[in-house]
Amino acid sequence: MVNYSPHQLDLVFGALAHPIRRAILTRLATGEATIAELAKPFKISAPAISKHMRLLEDAGLLSRKIQGREHHCRLEQQRMKEAAAWMEAQRKFWNERFDALELYLKENP
Amino acid sequence: MVNYSPHQLDLVFGALAHPIRRAILTRLATGEATIAELAKPFKISAPAISKHMRLLEDAGLLSRKIQGREHHCRLEQQRMKEAAAWMEAQRKFWNERFDALELYLKENP
Repeated sequence: MVNYSPHQLDLVFGALAHPIRRAILTRLATGEATIAELAKPFKISAPAISKHMRLLEDAGLLSRKIQGREHHCRLEQQRMKEAAAWMEAQRKFWNERFDALELYLKENP
Repeated sequence: MVNYSPHQLDLVFGALAHPIRRAILTRLATGEATIAELAKPFKISAPAISKHMRLLEDAGLLSRKIQGREHHCRLEQQRMKEAAAWMEAQRKFWNERFDALELYLKENP
C-alpha cells in the first residue's frame, strides 16, 4: 500500500468533516473567490468563517492571495488527491482480498 | 453533483482523521478481527481503543458481532464508498472547469 504522511491525512480528512468546509471547496472548484463571497451563503459569524478557512488552509486544501483588503482564495488540489489516493488504495486492497476469497471458494467448492 | 447526507459524510471524514482509525480499517480490509487483535499494534489503553472503535461504528465503517466474550469486527465498505464518491465528484467537477478554461484559451488565443 502507498504511504502518505499520517499527519497530513489527519488534517485533510478533519477539514472535510464539516458541511460548510465541503461547500467552500465545492464553490472554489468553480474558480477563485474572496472570503466575503465564500461566506455569503452561510449565516455564520466572521470569526466562524475564519476558523473554517484556517482549517482548510492548514490542511493545504486552500491558498490565499492578499490584494489590498481582499483575500482571494483558491483550491489546492494536491492534498485532496492524496486523500483520494489513500481511499482508492483501501478499496483496491479490499477488492483484491474479495477476489482471492472468491477464487478460493471456486477452487474449494 | 451527487448529494450525500452531510451528517454521514461528517462522521466518515471525521473517523478517517486519525492514524489509528485508518490503521484499524486497513487491518480489517484483510478480514475480520477481534478488538484484542485490532488493539495489539497500538500502545494505547482499552478505553482509548474503545473510543476509536465507537467513532468507526458511528460512521458506519465498522460493524461488530458479539460471540460470548469476543467482539468480532468487520469492515463496512458502503460508507467509505460514499465518501470516495464525494471526492471523485469534486475531482470531476474541477477537471471539467479546467477543461473549459483550456478550451476557452485555445479559442481565444
